[in-house]
Amino acid sequence: MSTARDHAQRDRDAALARLMRFLAIPSVSAVRAHAGDVQGAAEWLAARMAEAGIDGVRVDPTPGHPVVTGRLDAGPERPTVLVYGHYDVQPPEPLEAWNSPPFVPTLLDGAIVARGAADDKGQLMAHVEAAAACMLAGGPPVNLRYVFEGEEEVGSPNLAEWLRDHADELAADVAVISDTAMLSASQPSIVYGLRGLAYFEIEVVGPNHDLHSGAFGGATLNPAGVLCRILSALQDAEGRVLIPGFYDRVRPLGDDERDELARVPFDVGAFRTATGAAGGWGEPGYSLVERLGARPSLDINGLISGWTGEGAKTVLPARALAKVSMRLVPDQDPEDIAERVREAVAGLTPQGASATVRALHGARPAVCDRSHPAMQAAARAYADVFGTLPVFTREGGSIPVVTLLDELLGIPTVLMGFGLPDDGLHGPNEKFAVAQFWRGTETVIAFLEQLASAGVERS
Amino acid sequence: MSTARDHAQRDRDAALARLMRFLAIPSVSAVRAHAGDVQGAAEWLAARMAEAGIDGVRVDPTPGHPVVTGRLDAGPERPTVLVYGHYDVQPPEPLEAWNSPPFVPTLLDGAIVARGAADDKGQLMAHVEAAAACMLAGGPPVNLRYVFEGEEEVGSPNLAEWLRDHADELAADVAVISDTAMLSASQPSIVYGLRGLAYFEIEVVGPNHDLHSGAFGGATLNPAGVLCRILSALQDAEGRVLIPGFYDRVRPLGDDERDELARVPFDVGAFRTATGAAGGWGEPGYSLVERLGARPSLDINGLISGWTGEGAKTVLPARALAKVSMRLVPDQDPEDIAERVREAVAGLTPQGASATVRALHGARPAVCDRSHPAMQAAARAYADVFGTLPVFTREGGSIPVVTLLDELLGIPTVLMGFGLPDDGLHGPNEKFAVAQFWRGTETVIAFLEQLASAGVERS
Repeated sequence: MSTARDHAQRDRDAALARLMRFLAIPSVSAVRAHAGDVQGAAEWLAARMAEAGIDGVRVDPTPGHPVVTGRLDAGPERPTVLVYGHYDVQPPEPLEAWNSPPFVPTLLDGAIVARGAADDKGQLMAHVEAAAACMLAGGPPVNLRYVFEGEEEVGSPNLAEWLRDHADELAADVAVISDTAMLSASQPSIVYGLRGLAYFEIEVVGPNHDLHSGAFGGATLNPAGVLCRILSALQDAEGRVLIPGFYDRVRPLGDDERDELARVPFDVGAFRTATGAAGGWGEPGYSLVERLGARPSLDINGLISGWTGEGAKTVLPARALAKVSMRLVPDQDPEDIAERVREAVAGLTPQGASATVRALHGARPAVCDRSHPAMQAAARAYADVFGTLPVFTREGGSIPVVTLLDELLGIPTVLMGFGLPDDGLHGPNEKFAVAQFWRGTETVIAFLEQLASAGVERS
Repeated sequence: MSTARDHAQRDRDAALARLMRFLAIPSVSAVRAHAGDVQGAAEWLAARMAEAGIDGVRVDPTPGHPVVTGRLDAGPERPTVLVYGHYDVQPPEPLEAWNSPPFVPTLLDGAIVARGAADDKGQLMAHVEAAAACMLAGGPPVNLRYVFEGEEEVGSPNLAEWLRDHADELAADVAVISDTAMLSASQPSIVYGLRGLAYFEIEVVGPNHDLHSGAFGGATLNPAGVLCRILSALQDAEGRVLIPGFYDRVRPLGDDERDELARVPFDVGAFRTATGAAGGWGEPGYSLVERLGARPSLDINGLISGWTGEGAKTVLPARALAKVSMRLVPDQDPEDIAERVREAVAGLTPQGASATVRALHGARPAVCDRSHPAMQAAARAYADVFGTLPVFTREGGSIPVVTLLDELLGIPTVLMGFGLPDDGLHGPNEKFAVAQFWRGTETVIAFLEQLASAGVERS
């Protein structure tokens, strides 16, 4: 084991304590009232990076939340790795579903329970702690460029411009992102495919104010009813999306890839436990792994209309709003999908109501090359630390930066995730296993060391 | 004009000031946090009734909110009138839609704007002010029994028991309730038919906690999608209810009644202005007046699921809830309808989700006899004060007490409403025209005087 990994092991309790302080900052990027907290998290992170020995640390303002950046230099002959992570988190609501307050990090059954524990503060900090350990061991094995953003959970609206403006200082051979999960604590996996995202608000307006349902019901079109009817027409009961043209650009799965995905030791039991639902639902003709990673999907993320408090209020609501998103696969395009959603909703809206579709957030799907040397270096690093070679799989989530790094900087990405399937991302009681945090830190060190010895073709 | 009406006219500014104080008490019966305010409104009302000269005023506790009662005696040879009203109000939300705070009564364009102004504090106070004027004029023309409840807006759960327990002191020839609207300020009308109500919460549960829509979407049944699909299957796009058996007990409209309703000078333009919607929607084959008063309807009153805050949260929600109610007509029965709704929802719930139907509130529909002498006395009273004979019509709302008074006490009811169609009941900026309050007070006096001179057959 390397000296750097040795340092990481000796420092691990202090690293855990630092992560818990980071998690206590409620850096919810979606909610304006938390803007000060997001800024505070950026400053805390920058201070920790500087303390770890990272050079040139800056908190760069953007029109939204800041980007925290820094660098370490090992020498021009060494490969350069861009490390991306995000320090913003999802809103914690519904608060009553949490067993401990989301921003009071709590250790329970070997895991840190807190909003952002796995997504992505804990995984981001594995990289910062790895850098600290490398510095204690005499210096980094490769050149490093750190990019930590504060707007991933709201669709990275300002990242592309920041990346373009700083392309010179970001020249790198490969990027690494730890924001995904392994199949299990004993089975590492590397995600090579991510779904894209097209997220909308659909609002239906009927009367110009809320009405009495007795005085108006039966002779007044109800916007909540119209919304339900529109939503029910966007997707069939088995999950097939009915929006005309939705599947037009979906790249069919090849037989090779289907065979490979069929061999992924996906834990169906754990998946069902995590959902708490009977499971078995989804687009006919595709396996669970294919449905999650290689096929597009549509979900209602939120609904609100009329009276939602206690008891009975006999109101005929003036408006109804849904949050609806689609996960996309290559070669679907969020802007093309937005156009199709707008057309479909317009076609489904009856006279007497008006419907507005607002695109909130889009991300293109991404698939990475499994044969890239950095992918192989990552595989060896996992094997070193976890004792098992990782499998390659696809994941259902979206990390818009993967596409941006490819298109803007020409850098391929290795998705080196340390989460576990039951981490509860975006839901209540999100957690990150302490052992995954510590082993993740060591895996990052091993990856950097593998890259230094194996080399990477300069792009 | 009688001495009592003369007193009412001279006292009208003070009466208005009193009503505004009453409206400032946020007696929202549906919300537990307002229980103290509901009690406070009961006590304020009792104090005002005693001050007006009403005898035996009591605030009677119930398992929920109290009943305020009192009496006036004119002599055993005179008819006895039971006056019913309710001092509780609907929740004022959404607050941002109000132009002035709902519990800061505000005079605007000749109307009092406040939650409860027309429904029902303003109309209730017309009866109390009428009693005060009669007392100033020497005494009431008839015997009076006042019953003012605090739970009308939550379905009167404790009224039946209170009425049963006090049947002896409530013996009366006729009941009068002012909780409906006239067709316009110049066209009085008497409502002889009211729809019933069956109000439900339908909750669909899928996963046992909120999930990440990327990690689970496409392979996990979404309860919000299931709810929309269930709701869309309960009613067709034109408003016909699709619940099996829903129309089985609906009494067909006779040709005579259809002819009469066709002659009601219903102001379609005002209706469309009030809805702000294009109008023209509803069950095919029926007129607007028939759809509103004589045919059952179904409305979604509220929807909530998942993320409803600002921006995009990619959650696959664990649960979704709708508030759904049906307006019923004779001879539909809320309990029979509840059973049919439960069966329909169960049949529409797919494997992998569970749906619960909770009946929150039921009221039986009611139709009153238009030829009753008290109806004719009411018609003459309107003609005296407004200069125009009222028309008889049916209204879409529900006043459960009408059925209770009939079934428990054998008393027929006259619905002597003074509201106007654009009062905005249950919505924001509810109002009650000051002139309607004053003329309403005089019409009540004229009604009591008509009854005293015409007599009413003792039941």
